[in-house]
Parts: sequence; structure tokens; C-alpha cells
Amino acid sequence: MIKIGILGYGNLGRGVEAAIKKNDDMELAAVYTRRDPASLSIKTEGVPVKSTADLDKGAEDIDVLVICGGSATDLPVMTPKYAAMYNVIDSFDTHARIPEQFANVDKAAKAAGKIGVISCGWDPGMFSLNRVYASAILPDGQAYTFWGKGVSQGHSDAVRRIDGVLDCRQYTIPVEAALDKVRSGENPELTTREKHTRECFVVAEEGADLERIENEIKTMPNYFSDYDTTVHFITAEEMKAEHSGLPHGGSVIYSGTSSEGVKHVIEYKLTLDSNPEFTGSVLAACARAAFRMNGRGDCGAKTLFDIAPADLCAQSGDELRAHLL
Amino acid sequence: MIKIGILGYGNLGRGVEAAIKKNDDMELAAVYTRRDPASLSIKTEGVPVKSTADLDKGAEDIDVLVICGGSATDLPVMTPKYAAMYNVIDSFDTHARIPEQFANVDKAAKAAGKIGVISCGWDPGMFSLNRVYASAILPDGQAYTFWGKGVSQGHSDAVRRIDGVLDCRQYTIPVEAALDKVRSGENPELTTREKHTRECFVVAEEGADLERIENEIKTMPNYFSDYDTTVHFITAEEMKAEHSGLPHGGSVIYSGTSSEGVKHVIEYKLTLDSNPEFTGSVLAACARAAFRMNGRGDCGAKTLFDIAPADLCAQSGDELRAHLL
Repeated sequence: MIKIGILGYGNLGRGVEAAIKKNDDMELAAVYTRRDPASLSIKTEGVPVKSTADLDKGAEDIDVLVICGGSATDLPVMTPKYAAMYNVIDSFDTHARIPEQFANVDKAAKAAGKIGVISCGWDPGMFSLNRVYASAILPDGQAYTFWGKGVSQGHSDAVRRIDGVLDCRQYTIPVEAALDKVRSGENPELTTREKHTRECFVVAEEGADLERIENEIKTMPNYFSDYDTTVHFITAEEMKAEHSGLPHGGSVIYSGTSSEGVKHVIEYKLTLDSNPEFTGSVLAACARAAFRMNGRGDCGAKTLFDIAPADLCAQSGDELRAHLL
Repeated sequence: MIKIGILGYGNLGRGVEAAIKKNDDMELAAVYTRRDPASLSIKTEGVPVKSTADLDKGAEDIDVLVICGGSATDLPVMTPKYAAMYNVIDSFDTHARIPEQFANVDKAAKAAGKIGVISCGWDPGMFSLNRVYASAILPDGQAYTFWGKGVSQGHSDAVRRIDGVLDCRQYTIPVEAALDKVRSGENPELTTREKHTRECFVVAEEGADLERIENEIKTMPNYFSDYDTTVHFITAEEMKAEHSGLPHGGSVIYSGTSSEGVKHVIEYKLTLDSNPEFTGSVLAACARAAFRMNGRGDCGAKTLFDIAPADLCAQSGDELRAHLL
């Protein structure tokens, strides 16, 4: 049994907990929190909730620590710190800072003889893998990534910070016409606005100036100003009834040429009922791979690019070749 | 530069030749044939065509030999034989005999300190990889594989062996209703007949009994009797004008659950203008991985399950993390 520790018990931490239940070769050893452990009740019976102070001693009885923190401030500190003590997994998703995160985790993990797998999930993660496989097979080609239809938590949070807004759920929606063009293999040039639209469901304070709120959303730089955005004002009851899930998904579509006029289109598409549960499931599979790779003496920072697919799977090589090849 | 030898210059061998041209870090060193080398003219200028007798001496100046033979009789003999002398790649696709092929190649390659990557292509190959990744992430789920629309060379050949048939092109077509059911995540049970239909374009001898031919096709065991099959008789000119390509493709659709009632659907879809050119492109990427893995001292039989994705790509780890993660 692979003993997993989870650091952080938000949506993602609970997603990892759910994934461990689905994998017979793993067990949840402990959940670690920065809050008062007594204040936290988890779903798995008989498993202790402990303080990060325990973790910091470096002697917890876990094979892999799955770090479920935010990419902005948590993971740049936590992942290198704990890679110096344990095999670790994170879902670091600030694309521009991945090289820096990799270097910091690599240094700490190598010094400790541990493995640190960073940027696991679906994007970065499974989508990245599909960009790599496709460009390895067809170097003369182009990758397109579409997200949605799904809830963007970053965009929902951005709207919640507007004065007069009580709650928001923001859906990112790929434009069908753009998807069709890309699937046809014609390698179009597409602007940000042509690829995705955004749709916001907003609960406003009573008496708030809805016109101002709508305008602030639609003109918000980086988040909304480059997109066609629709805003709907709804009640708190409607929000709870119709928008309580966190579905997401999207497609990586790669179109490439093997010789003059001979085209191929590769599409990888995800339709996810729950973004955090799917991401947690990827993290759990990566925890298995980290455990196995470290058991063979490997150490340092890794991404899914460095993991042989067989290491992610519970089955043996013989079983995989007999049944899935 | 990675020096590649190609053994066999049929559709697949020419596909590998085309792929090498698209990869700046590879060069075609020689094409090997069992025929008289003087009878063969290849597309790449300045590259020698040699006899397999040269190859048999075990001293050819190549880094990897890509073996482009048939799975029925060629590859079970050739791949173990040449794995004892060179790093080798094959596209062995007799699913039931893969464990045996793997064991034979493993023995020969390990004794020689070489790498032998077997069963590369798209099914087995990229489709297998997607079955493995999906079941690693969502162990509680089910994989469905659909082929087509595309030309099945095995089925076309089977029809050509019928008395009175001059030529045939057989298309395998997935049933849209079955695809829709699977994509909805409802995990249906589907019979062979419900998943695919078959369509044959046949050129018959003048005066042949078309009714008998059609009946022989539709009732042929293993190949057609379990499917709804349509037969069209056409002229040799129509065959040449409308059915000279070898398009193919299909989808692996995996539907799984991460917790009670929370479903996810993963689809990997290929739309290929040319089956042999795409397969050849996968083989070329695997040749790169074999060269690198052997350079690090690794040896024995491998499949795509055992290859870290980064090893398939020309770019460095730093480049992949910066641009594709």
C-alpha cells in the first residue's frame, strides 16, 4: 500500500481523497492543515487530521505528500520546502513560472533523494501531454487548446471582488465555429475573442447598480476585456440550485502534416463533471509514479513528460500489454 | 543526427521515410530489402538501397532499425533477430501474440544490450496509450475503441481473395448512435454489430456473378458476418479516382467515475489522411526514444507504455516545460 498524505483540504484536497478511495493500492495516511486540526472533519474514517507543524519535522510516515495549495503564493514555497523531506506532487499552474518552480523543486528533491512531480492535472497535465505526443509524432503542425464549457474559479473570484457583487459563477465557453475550423485541419489564425466567450451568473447586493457591475465586468483587463462576455443577474437561490457544481473540460486539437498535402488531426477532449475531482485523480496517479520511481532510486523534479505511462497504472507491465496494448 | 535504417519499402516503409524528412535530428542511412536492391528506387536522394544480407552481418552503421514488415509472419522472426544486433522498432499488431513477441524481443535485446520497441503505431500505439492514461486516472471506468471511417487493408485483402474479384477497398465506419451513447457517459453494452458497419467497393471480373460475390462477402466469418455490410460494384477507373488513398482514424472514449455520481469522459480522436504515413511518424518518434534510452544504458523490449513522453520529442526538457507544459 502506498501511504499518501494530503496537505490542504479544499476542493482539490477532497478530490485527491476521493481518488485514493478508487485506487486499491493506496491509502490515505493523514490530512495536514494550517488551520486547527480539531476544526476539520474529513470524509475518510479513522484517518488523522494533523498540523503542518507535524509535517515540518520531516518524519511523517507517508510515501508521498500531495500538496493541494494555490499556485500564486502556496506552491512556490511549499513544494520546494517539502520536497526536501518527502516525495511530493503539486498542481502548479502558473505557466510562466513553471521553469522556476521546476528548478527550485529539483534542487531540494535531489539533495534529499526524493521525487517532486510538479504541474500535474489536466492543463497543465493531460493537455500538455497531448501537445507533446502530437508534436513528437508530427513536428510540422500546430496545437490549439480550447477550454470549457466550464467554471473558471479565477474569473469567478475576480467578479466577486467587484463592489456590490455577492457571488459569481463564470463559465468559459469555446466558440463552435473556431472548433470546427481547427478540426477541419485548416490551421486558422484565431484571436482570443474568436476562440472563447465568457458567461457570468452574478448575485448582486439589493439595490446595487447592475449597469455599473455589468460594465465593470465586461471591461476588466486581462480577465474579460478581450472577450465577448454575457452577464446574467440571478438570485442566491438560483445560484445554489443551478450553479453549484464545478464542471470543466476542453480540447487540445493538433493539426499536422506528414508530407506534402497529407494532413492528420489529433484531438484530445475532456468532459468533466468535477474539475477538482478529475485533477485530484491525476495527482493520485502521479503519486503512484513518484513512489515507484523513487523506489528505483530516481530523484529530482519531474513532470508528466518524464513519467513512463506504465508507472501511473496499478497494473503490472504484463497485464497492461495483455489487456490494454 | 540519429541514423535510421528502414527494413522493407512498402507503404509503411515509405511512411517512415516521409517522417524522417520532417525531423531535423534524424537522417535516413539506408533502406534494406529482401528483393534485389537494384530493383528498388527510393524517394530520398543519395541514400543507398541495400540487401538484408548486409544487415545480417550486424555491422551496419545505423543507430536504429525500423522494421516495416507484416505481423503475421515477418515481425515474429525479424524483430527478435535484429534486436540481437541493433536498436529496433516494429509495429507488431497481432494483439493476442504481443506478450510472446515482447518476451522474444526482450531476450534478444537484453543479451545484446539493445532496445527493441514493439507495437508502435496508433492501435496498438497511441490508442493503447490513451487507454492506459485514462484507466490510470480513473480506475473505475470503461474504455471503448471505435475505428474509422477508414480503409482496412486486411478486410480489403480478404475480399480480393474471392473468386471473380479484381480489386476491393473496404471502409470500416463507426456507428454514430453508438458513439453518441458512449460520449454521454452511460457506459452502454454494445455488440460488434452495434459499433461498426462495413462498406466495400468492389471491382469484379467481366461477367462475374455479382450476387454470389456479394453474398460471399457478407457471410465471410470473422471478417464480415458479424457486421452490417454494404457492397458497391464499381469500375476500375472509379476505384482509382475515388479510393486510392488510405485514410483512417477512430476514437478511444473512456468514461469513468471519481466518486458517486461524478462522471468524466475522455476522448482521443484521430482523423488521418494516410494510415501508413501517420504510423510511420509514430515509428520515427519511437526510434528517437530508443536511441536516447539506449544511450543512457537501458536495454530490452519496450512499448510506448515504458517510454517517458519527453524521450519521443526532439526538444529538450527545458524547451518542453517552457512551451508545451
